Amino acid sequence: MHDEIQTPAVLVDIDVARRNIERFQVYADSHGLKVRPHIKTHKLPVLAEMQLDAGAVGITCQKVSEAEAMVAGSSRLSDVLITYNILGQDKLRSLVALARKVRLAVVADNATVVDGLSVAFSASGETLDVFVECNTGADRCGVASPQDAADLAGRIAAAPGLRFAGLMTYPPVGGAARVQAFMTEAKALIEERGIPVPAITSGGSPDMMSAHLAPATTEYRPGTYVYNDRSLVARGVCGWEDCALTVLATVVSVPAANRAIIDAGSKTLTSDLLGLTGYGHVLGRPDIAIDQLSEEHGRLRSDGDIGLKVGERLRIVPNHACVVTNMVDAVYALQAGQAPQRWPVPARGKIV
Amino acid sequence: MHDEIQTPAVLVDIDVARRNIERFQVYADSHGLKVRPHIKTHKLPVLAEMQLDAGAVGITCQKVSEAEAMVAGSSRLSDVLITYNILGQDKLRSLVALARKVRLAVVADNATVVDGLSVAFSASGETLDVFVECNTGADRCGVASPQDAADLAGRIAAAPGLRFAGLMTYPPVGGAARVQAFMTEAKALIEERGIPVPAITSGGSPDMMSAHLAPATTEYRPGTYVYNDRSLVARGVCGWEDCALTVLATVVSVPAANRAIIDAGSKTLTSDLLGLTGYGHVLGRPDIAIDQLSEEHGRLRSDGDIGLKVGERLRIVPNHACVVTNMVDAVYALQAGQAPQRWPVPARGKIV
Repeated sequence: MHDEIQTPAVLVDIDVARRNIERFQVYADSHGLKVRPHIKTHKLPVLAEMQLDAGAVGITCQKVSEAEAMVAGSSRLSDVLITYNILGQDKLRSLVALARKVRLAVVADNATVVDGLSVAFSASGETLDVFVECNTGADRCGVASPQDAADLAGRIAAAPGLRFAGLMTYPPVGGAARVQAFMTEAKALIEERGIPVPAITSGGSPDMMSAHLAPATTEYRPGTYVYNDRSLVARGVCGWEDCALTVLATVVSVPAANRAIIDAGSKTLTSDLLGLTGYGHVLGRPDIAIDQLSEEHGRLRSDGDIGLKVGERLRIVPNHACVVTNMVDAVYALQAGQAPQRWPVPARGKIV
Repeated sequence: MHDEIQTPAVLVDIDVARRNIERFQVYADSHGLKVRPHIKTHKLPVLAEMQLDAGAVGITCQKVSEAEAMVAGSSRLSDVLITYNILGQDKLRSLVALARKVRLAVVADNATVVDGLSVAFSASGETLDVFVECNTGADRCGVASPQDAADLAGRIAAAPGLRFAGLMTYPPVGGAARVQAFMTEAKALIEERGIPVPAITSGGSPDMMSAHLAPATTEYRPGTYVYNDRSLVARGVCGWEDCALTVLATVVSVPAANRAIIDAGSKTLTSDLLGLTGYGHVLGRPDIAIDQLSEEHGRLRSDGDIGLKVGERLRIVPNHACVVTNMVDAVYALQAGQAPQRWPVPARGKIV
């Protein structure tokens, strides 16, 4: 299986990815929702272009350096939302430079971030779009209440160099009703102040097909949907045949009848569990559990004879596709009728 | 705190690392044990040189590409053990090329691997040292019994292009008695066949100070000891002051009195738990738990008021130092009286 590729390797089935992209775009179009995919899952400018071709309005990035890498990789990526509180002189300088190249927006959930953005952008002569991040139950970032959202929106609207762009949330799974309630109330409070709310953006692949259940939402930011993974199969969002990203691994040892060791460990599959048991799904072998990873070894167990041979190759759907992309300098793109192509991953490791 | 460094960043206190290296070397010297550090923890040729300076006989790597990166980074790294079953034409070609540059050894736990190595090396005119990997209870790779070890040693000794180099194990924690029993019996069985057993190599930082409890061992391969981490503090192996690697992070949000969010998530700290609860230790704040990571966010919780401000910087000891090194293109080396230096990590991401 793909003998020309050294293992472990990350494979991406481009035809499956395209189908995944188009499937959500059709859904979003039918509900009048704009799509702004989060590129953290693929970190590839060429796949972001494929998302634009399908109808996406722009991209979402999580860090400034990630946005820089994406923009450097394609002149077509000209509309970027960074869904992060940005702090620090170096990052603010990078942000100003980026704003001179593309249509840029960021989020903020506190006054310190807003004030830092305002100082940097008013000095630069540029104007930055800033969304208020709202906590709709995921308990990560985000202002705690619609009233707090309105207060911060007011601060942004009044801040030199900034423009209030709307409301953003990364909701908990099953959180559509809470998104709708929070956003409706926050929007009314902000509009009462005479400030328009141009956009309300939400995200998350697990619930993407329920985005219309929070109709206040104008834009959606799915990430994992482009590749899918074991966590989304477990949630019933897709099937194994919809998983575009797999890890190709070689059996390097069969030290016992019910145990085999592969050359992919936590440095490839990662230790992300996302609530699951085990570290991935061996395609075609639902009887096998990947029950332990060390950095370069994955341990496979079966109840009976595992029936694998040293040298045999397997394809594994990881628990979480996005973090696997981040582990490799390049992925191998598979397309019908073509030899696998090695694609460098420009936005890998962009943590600042 | 280190305002000149953008966060998140991986910091390495070189003076602490040196002290850790020397501490184990003194112990090993006092027991007549050779030291062959596993470089997976630092992935830095300059730190491997520091280990050689202290008295190490060579280095251990886990993958062929990792060994290539280390050897390319320092002409002094001339004695390399790769503790992995190596399969596949590309990797065997790389292995032959490496054997022409350095004194090289690998391990094997099955006949398929031995036969592949023999074909490649006998054709090359080089001779490769091969250890038999033994399972002393960790249930990862390794032959299951001393008798199996003797059989595979015989196969290696008889194979063109190969030389039997001895026995290798990666034991379970607390496994010294099992290592001693397995190795003593295997050595006797192999010597009965008239085959010498030049070396017996074991490893693992948690038990490194008990290596002498398996006196059959001639060489030890600690990895994590150079940096230490939260897992080793939890095991009582070291204190926080012995942790050379930390993650520098910035508080980007304090959305509730008992919760703060930092800009380091699983792309920096990783999801490795190693049996622990939470994803790291905030230095100076034992009351704080890092209870959730997403890729770029770490969530900090305290029972009472968390007392952190947006923009504040924290240093975090990760659960597992080795995997954190693998997440970054560079670490920042801290040395007394010097400004932090950015050191690229040449062996990062070398999974094949």
